[in-house]
Amino acid sequence: MDLKRIGEFGLIDRLTKRNGFPNSKLDIGIGDDCAVFKPSPGKRQVVTTDALIEHIHFNLSTITPYQLGWKSLAVNLSDIAAMGGVPRFAFLSLGIPTHCDVTFLDSFSKGFHDLAGKYEVELAGGDTTRSLNDLFINVTLIGEVSSKKFFCRKGAQEDDALFVSGDLGDSALGLELLQTPGKSWIASKTARAQLIRKHTQPEPRVNLARELVSCNVKITSMIDISDGLAQDLGHICKANSLGAQLWEQELPSSPALRKVCRSNNLNPMSYILGGGEDYELLFTSPSKDAKKVLRHFQKAEVSVSQIGVMLASPKKLTLVGENDREVNINSIKGFDHFK
Amino acid sequence: MDLKRIGEFGLIDRLTKRNGFPNSKLDIGIGDDCAVFKPSPGKRQVVTTDALIEHIHFNLSTITPYQLGWKSLAVNLSDIAAMGGVPRFAFLSLGIPTHCDVTFLDSFSKGFHDLAGKYEVELAGGDTTRSLNDLFINVTLIGEVSSKKFFCRKGAQEDDALFVSGDLGDSALGLELLQTPGKSWIASKTARAQLIRKHTQPEPRVNLARELVSCNVKITSMIDISDGLAQDLGHICKANSLGAQLWEQELPSSPALRKVCRSNNLNPMSYILGGGEDYELLFTSPSKDAKKVLRHFQKAEVSVSQIGVMLASPKKLTLVGENDREVNINSIKGFDHFK
Repeated sequence: MDLKRIGEFGLIDRLTKRNGFPNSKLDIGIGDDCAVFKPSPGKRQVVTTDALIEHIHFNLSTITPYQLGWKSLAVNLSDIAAMGGVPRFAFLSLGIPTHCDVTFLDSFSKGFHDLAGKYEVELAGGDTTRSLNDLFINVTLIGEVSSKKFFCRKGAQEDDALFVSGDLGDSALGLELLQTPGKSWIASKTARAQLIRKHTQPEPRVNLARELVSCNVKITSMIDISDGLAQDLGHICKANSLGAQLWEQELPSSPALRKVCRSNNLNPMSYILGGGEDYELLFTSPSKDAKKVLRHFQKAEVSVSQIGVMLASPKKLTLVGENDREVNINSIKGFDHFK
Repeated sequence: MDLKRIGEFGLIDRLTKRNGFPNSKLDIGIGDDCAVFKPSPGKRQVVTTDALIEHIHFNLSTITPYQLGWKSLAVNLSDIAAMGGVPRFAFLSLGIPTHCDVTFLDSFSKGFHDLAGKYEVELAGGDTTRSLNDLFINVTLIGEVSSKKFFCRKGAQEDDALFVSGDLGDSALGLELLQTPGKSWIASKTARAQLIRKHTQPEPRVNLARELVSCNVKITSMIDISDGLAQDLGHICKANSLGAQLWEQELPSSPALRKVCRSNNLNPMSYILGGGEDYELLFTSPSKDAKKVLRHFQKAEVSVSQIGVMLASPKKLTLVGENDREVNINSIKGFDHFK
């Protein structure tokens, strides 16, 4: 159905009707000039914003509208998670070209609200407008952290243990599978689906982050991995004037990634170290707490691995591989939109 | 200069360096996954977001990058003003096509920060990315209102007096002047510049709104005029199940608008009632307070006019003109992006 038939206000109704909370936390919600809400006592507000642009971040031939709605919120949830925050209110701006019709937007909305519902995020406002060429999506997400305990990039110390959640590299390999449909990949249907899903419908680590806030271990710094392990670890190093040593044997990867890399003669390390959009959490903890961290998360819904240590030398970023050979990996760069 | 030379992080540095506050109000600012700040005690948070998209909201042939930076913040400031809020933190997302170079973005940034500085708004975060075709701009603005006194669309009563700030219609006529360069307009250089400036570099009514909060008159509802007087008044009517009567003789218009309309045989009412992007404030007050309101704002930096009254009949929207003739103006519609 064409958007002309429902108009701007009809579209807003459709985008917001899935807001499935019986008790809105807003004093003033959608339909006024601003959303108005009361911050919880003793909390700090945390805010992030991320844009997804057609042909740059996604192509409609390789992602479904449902996944796109999901992902546009997921990437923001991942940022709130990185601070140890509880997400609360989302603001969605859409620039809609004529090739996106009402059916498309209904599916988009379902994906967005399915994830929002999972973490009790309320769509609190936004802007819907036409776009001449490309679909433009921007989400701003507001959450809360305890004034006494939240995480950021700064805080890591020399010798701190370095941890990561989940597996690395799946998203980047999934994207490559999507972008090269003509290439004769050797990959099982299951492995293929798993890698692609990590790219198209990532699961933000909100619950793990909340557990890191409430558990009895000290977290000294945290970041989410969106630009690739090497680059995001570089941000932690820079913020603390430290270096880091990664342990190749400990870098977590999925059986799917290892199998597809082996079958197609690819180096898994390039995906694990340099691949973007993992949306896993990378964090540090004093080395004396390392075992406590691993024990605590042994039975968590997502795995936690120690992958290295922080070093005193600023800018030193190395990988220790087989036979304890240590190589410099400073040159592995993540994605830069303008380079 | 090409963006490739400075890269994503170089661009972020350039966009943020103008943040001219010696004392940042942020606990964590740009460079982390989220901004973190402490809400002021006893305040509610107010949030708005607006997207500006090339070829839809602006054309780079008729607006300078400086004006575009200014305007992208101004439209959001206007929404915060409509709630009676104090703006605090801005989040800027940019999707940048190759035709926007570093010089363009420096000017954009100057326009943005010149207005931000005027109202002590701090750029607290954002997202910068490439765009294939069009320039995308999204701004989210967070402010605060007193928990005890803030404005929204709901609250107007039958017989309430209806007020508007400034002059109406200039922006719409200014846009028409810009869009029809080939047409032989009869317009003085000064009038032309004044009308166009109202479109390209609007002045949000933040100070007036703050005065409405602190002064001793009761404001029952408020909205900013972005879609045109008739449509935005329609929103107030709908929110309160009321109608409204406008007084043609009292609708404020600038000498420039009246003169250019007269010289070019145009009906000023179509701009005053239906023209969008005025970014003036439309508000209601009990009729017994009407004189007090007018007296209070007699010497304000921007004029305030009573332009009509609220009516009991829902959906009734009329204009009383010469000889007390009353005509229905329900059919005047503002802008709908999808119709």
